[in-house]
Amino acid sequence: MLRQHLHEVSVPTKGRGFYDFTDSVQELVAKSGFKAGLATLHLQHTSASLLIQENADPEVRRDLERFFARLVPDGEPLFRHTSEGDDDMPAHVRTALTCVNLSIPIAQSRLTLGTWQGIYLWEHRLAPHQRRVSVHLIGE
Amino acid sequence: MLRQHLHEVSVPTKGRGFYDFTDSVQELVAKSGFKAGLATLHLQHTSASLLIQENADPEVRRDLERFFARLVPDGEPLFRHTSEGDDDMPAHVRTALTCVNLSIPIAQSRLTLGTWQGIYLWEHRLAPHQRRVSVHLIGE
Amino acid sequence: MLRQHLHEVSVPTKGRGFYDFTDSVQELVAKSGFKAGLATLHLQHTSASLLIQENADPEVRRDLERFFARLVPDGEPLFRHTSEGDDDMPAHVRTALTCVNLSIPIAQSRLTLGTWQGIYLWEHRLAPHQRRVSVHLIGE
Repeated sequence: MLRQHLHEVSVPTKGRGFYDFTDSVQELVAKSGFKAGLATLHLQHTSASLLIQENADPEVRRDLERFFARLVPDGEPLFRHTSEGDDDMPAHVRTALTCVNLSIPIAQSRLTLGTWQGIYLWEHRLAPHQRRVSVHLIGE
Repeated sequence: MLRQHLHEVSVPTKGRGFYDFTDSVQELVAKSGFKAGLATLHLQHTSASLLIQENADPEVRRDLERFFARLVPDGEPLFRHTSEGDDDMPAHVRTALTCVNLSIPIAQSRLTLGTWQGIYLWEHRLAPHQRRVSVHLIGE
Repeated sequence: MLRQHLHEVSVPTKGRGFYDFTDSVQELVAKSGFKAGLATLHLQHTSASLLIQENADPEVRRDLERFFARLVPDGEPLFRHTSEGDDDMPAHVRTALTCVNLSIPIAQSRLTLGTWQGIYLWEHRLAPHQRRVSVHLIGE
């Protein structure tokens, strides 16, 4: 019979960059006992993103960072919401350009991620933050 | 025991801009009686987006609008799909750069949104539209 | 009573471009027998996207391609992850700018897609690939 579980995962960041928390989610899936189901993640913030990306060559993430830093530069003169720092409005735009939700089916008691896929919290602010992700699991 | 509910929410727009409809979704969650669960929203259009963004300073949304208007300008000469107006193809590109689905866990009978998160329909067309969002709730 | 089904859909691509696989997903929904429910799709790759876009004028997809090709050009000198080809890092960035998950409610035994919405796999690599999409259906 189908059941559900709710969790909250906390991801501490040291400022802008990618933080792999795939293992935390896989552990929750393992603990649920679900052989098949669906995992949904929601990031409770508007200046960071949830991103599934390549977990092999770290240069991929550095190139992503370089591209977004050029596309939405800190201190961009177009922006008027500047009271929270040069990196705040760019963080909101980066979040709008990416995602704050992820939905991943579970099969054989694991997330159906591809071989090279990792789940990242992408911190867009320069300062360290404590980020909260709500996790919903449903399955059997 | 897990149950589900299906709804359709209609969001009228007055043209390009952000329309907060968080309360409509929270009301559906309240009516469902679900203490825990999952809410999924799907926008049935390709020239508007669903966006979770800061609901405090309205300047954040104006800056988002300024950024996207510069990134994908109306009347962009690169585009050939121009028969429906200068703002039509930019609207499709904005939609591709953002999202048309949202999935948010429910805890303590409410969406697990962060303190500053609102759910917005982002209308990309200049003319008013009636936008339809299908809402699926599952929980208990 | 709520039940779930898990599937894997394989989408062969002939290189960069849009591949409509809406019918494959609608067929799975029909086979499930679910009148109401939720369909979730997850693409198991980091250099292609899942996109819901207009299925009427094919020029819309060609304009999307033109825009993204200019925004994230192949051979972009900013990138250092270049060992897998000029189109590899741009493919990762395009994927970050779009989505790899889709969640669509089911009503009246069909996906609640809008009249002009199709589900596309957007291949970002130049070479042909075999892409895998995991599909989770829940409903009754």
